[in-house]
Amino acid sequence: MSKLVFIRHGQSEWNLENKFTGWHDVDLSEQGVSEAKAAGAAIKAAGIEFDQAYTSVLTRAIKTLHYVLEESDQLWIPETKSWRLNERHYGKLQGLNKKETADKYGDEQVHIWRRSYDTLPPLMEATDEGSAVNDRRYADLDPRLVPGGENLKVTLERALPFWEDHIAPDLLAGKNVIVAAHGNSLRALTKYIENISDEDIMDVEMATGEPVVYTFDDKLNVVSKEKLHD
Amino acid sequence: MSKLVFIRHGQSEWNLENKFTGWHDVDLSEQGVSEAKAAGAAIKAAGIEFDQAYTSVLTRAIKTLHYVLEESDQLWIPETKSWRLNERHYGKLQGLNKKETADKYGDEQVHIWRRSYDTLPPLMEATDEGSAVNDRRYADLDPRLVPGGENLKVTLERALPFWEDHIAPDLLAGKNVIVAAHGNSLRALTKYIENISDEDIMDVEMATGEPVVYTFDDKLNVVSKEKLHD
Repeated sequence: MSKLVFIRHGQSEWNLENKFTGWHDVDLSEQGVSEAKAAGAAIKAAGIEFDQAYTSVLTRAIKTLHYVLEESDQLWIPETKSWRLNERHYGKLQGLNKKETADKYGDEQVHIWRRSYDTLPPLMEATDEGSAVNDRRYADLDPRLVPGGENLKVTLERALPFWEDHIAPDLLAGKNVIVAAHGNSLRALTKYIENISDEDIMDVEMATGEPVVYTFDDKLNVVSKEKLHD
Repeated sequence: MSKLVFIRHGQSEWNLENKFTGWHDVDLSEQGVSEAKAAGAAIKAAGIEFDQAYTSVLTRAIKTLHYVLEESDQLWIPETKSWRLNERHYGKLQGLNKKETADKYGDEQVHIWRRSYDTLPPLMEATDEGSAVNDRRYADLDPRLVPGGENLKVTLERALPFWEDHIAPDLLAGKNVIVAAHGNSLRALTKYIENISDEDIMDVEMATGEPVVYTFDDKLNVVSKEKLHD
């Protein structure tokens, strides 16, 4: 029986400012730090010991992971970061206030951008300010792999290889794994793990800083799922 | 031309209490946190961009690394931890106050334990409280590899494979590398890199939180060495 813990990063500064964030690299807010520490305390109280940690290449997820591991006395476990666990790329919407965007484009359009499984946001070009193509952390990627905007479908397609290559083999080997990531990358993996339909997945919410604990049997069937509270 | 930065962790709580620490896992003191952040600011000011980070499995070194990377806006780089970068294991001296130990055993004996290249400290047994054999972070090691006490010679012998397998190949591939570790594991690697004699190495001091920057040519010869200050 292996355990997999998903944790969405604590509140970020742009969550607080109600902006589309995506791949933009913002820090945790003070509340976000508190949420991450509380999650670590909850994991310690639950007695969960990890063998491996995974996170994205975005500061808010990495710091959440570090607070969780430090609070649960296991900062020393191996940690691997991957862009495949990044938040959904929000294209040209990144940096825009959600309310202002709704005022400009209408509530319905914004609802579609946020909640449609397969509608892409307006795409960022490589020459746009903030394009990931010019960010050193993606320099080893084929530029054609660097997105200018993603929907949840594309987010799942690029996150799934990480599940296949890293998370699933660890769980099958009996390891306990923590994944500190983002609302949409975790929602995408949740869709795969729980076999949720394209329609229903958009209503699944991941609370910031709340650990979700899956237990798997040795065939990778979900035996239980629970949310940890303080 | 590749760069290698060595940084000894900031002041720890046991540095402050003047205790032998070794593999005991103590946290940074407040001053230690400040030192680590200042080191990160100095690295940012120097414009050094890393491709890979290495650290030990001890909290004080890991946290130092994280502060340095966060302050220099590169928390996202790959990080690998290894017991081979741990502090010298101080055997049964771990946890003892250095002054009290000198009062008990004499200044000369303590000087030998601290400064002799190849004298071992009194060894810890697997059944002693605090033995690394019973620590989950060393559970994957052959118990015969888990030391009960080390001198600098042994510290170098177990650190050198990490240089050979990880650090040297990265530098030869043109990568910039940071190693956040400990007074004696870094002193051991310094001995190797600079070809310092068994006698002279014991007088080489590593200041806490002070980055040492080596530049290497493509045959791994040292081209320059400098210490970064605020």
